[in-house]
Amino acid sequence: MSGRLTVIGLGPGSAAQVTPQASAAIAEASFFYGYKPYLDRLDLRADQTRIASDNREELARAREALKKAAEGHAAAIVSGGDPGVFAMAAAVCEAIEAGPPQWRDIEFAVVPGVTAMLAVAARAGAPLGHDFCAVSLSDNLKPWAIIERRLKAAAEAGFVIALYNPVSRARPKQLDTAFDILRGVLPAATPVIFGRAAGRPDERIDIRRLAEAGAGMADMATCVIVGSTETRTIDRNGRPPLVYSPRSWGRPAQ
Amino acid sequence: MSGRLTVIGLGPGSAAQVTPQASAAIAEASFFYGYKPYLDRLDLRADQTRIASDNREELARAREALKKAAEGHAAAIVSGGDPGVFAMAAAVCEAIEAGPPQWRDIEFAVVPGVTAMLAVAARAGAPLGHDFCAVSLSDNLKPWAIIERRLKAAAEAGFVIALYNPVSRARPKQLDTAFDILRGVLPAATPVIFGRAAGRPDERIDIRRLAEAGAGMADMATCVIVGSTETRTIDRNGRPPLVYSPRSWGRPAQ
Repeated sequence: MSGRLTVIGLGPGSAAQVTPQASAAIAEASFFYGYKPYLDRLDLRADQTRIASDNREELARAREALKKAAEGHAAAIVSGGDPGVFAMAAAVCEAIEAGPPQWRDIEFAVVPGVTAMLAVAARAGAPLGHDFCAVSLSDNLKPWAIIERRLKAAAEAGFVIALYNPVSRARPKQLDTAFDILRGVLPAATPVIFGRAAGRPDERIDIRRLAEAGAGMADMATCVIVGSTETRTIDRNGRPPLVYSPRSWGRPAQ
Repeated sequence: MSGRLTVIGLGPGSAAQVTPQASAAIAEASFFYGYKPYLDRLDLRADQTRIASDNREELARAREALKKAAEGHAAAIVSGGDPGVFAMAAAVCEAIEAGPPQWRDIEFAVVPGVTAMLAVAARAGAPLGHDFCAVSLSDNLKPWAIIERRLKAAAEAGFVIALYNPVSRARPKQLDTAFDILRGVLPAATPVIFGRAAGRPDERIDIRRLAEAGAGMADMATCVIVGSTETRTIDRNGRPPLVYSPRSWGRPAQ
């Protein structure tokens, strides 16, 4: 008998942003693998088991969950946001490809979720309203030179840029290097959004100019959105400003 | 008295992918504006009113909804997917910026949703597991030359590329031009995913090689994901293949 493995996206943090599909997938699984803060968001039954692991042990976690599924169990891995965006779905695919042939027989499903940049963008206005990209600033698995090249290419081509994993204890300063690269391409007044815990009670959305943006404004759980040359800010009386990227490029909206 | 306007993301199509936050926002609004197929997904009460408009009338729709909110009503605009991704949130911001000053006093909120590329990616494996970008192929509001430049820059820099609005009746052939550009940069075997109605009963997920990809495989409601040089396909017995982009770049996964 072959079991199943579901990788479930819990959204950015608020229970109101967990889809009914994710809630149903949680109800149907027996063994839950994940980073502890994500497991802590589950309200499990007595017959459901949680197995926490560290943030940096993604591949080992994927293998453990696949092994459990191959034994015939209903296993689940939980991710914050969307599991396909810099999260566990790719790690599971890597483990399946490198693992024993029978792991390819496991019923494997991914349940999408609201990823951080969408939740942050929603709270700021519509900064992702034009072409955009998502870049992980972590160089644990890719050379930093590749990241620098991508940031430059994306800014020059007019993409709004969402930065995931902007800083960590081991990488406190790379975000400053990233801002320096972007300041070489984009105007000083380009809006930069620092979004943390979007949709949760401890939410913090800070809007700055690129000239003033610094790594000290972000932590591991922040998603940073850097505008393009067209991204605009609307000031409002007694309300936070709106930041948006017009649908049009290089000519006025119709 | 000033009313409010909420722009609500309904997700890619399945009711199971509508967040509780979106459902609550629907329950609280009185006047609903949107493209008819999206309004058709709502199950409204007798005291709630729907006002349908055409796909191409985004700015007029935004203004009408803002006017209703400025009169003190609870207005809502519904979008498929996420309203901040090539959808109504940016159109509303454009209308607010260009409109009368009192529109800036309206309580304005955006409710995020699962955008098409996330739902399609989830059904295919993890093609967005590495740095990626989203490009709208519509040249209604931006010059086609800009689109060509972005596709080339993104492929050369190693981004996976999600194409929104890949074809329309007025633009049946631009997707072929886009594939030609990408074939100039990426290997023939690069996986291309054509995803339609992800998560709905009429879902169709087709996986092709870039060499064979053609505009005839897509319609207006398709989201196309083009891999990078690192994107891989895992064949499975009796199950569709998995397509994924490894978290690492240029060296084997650890």
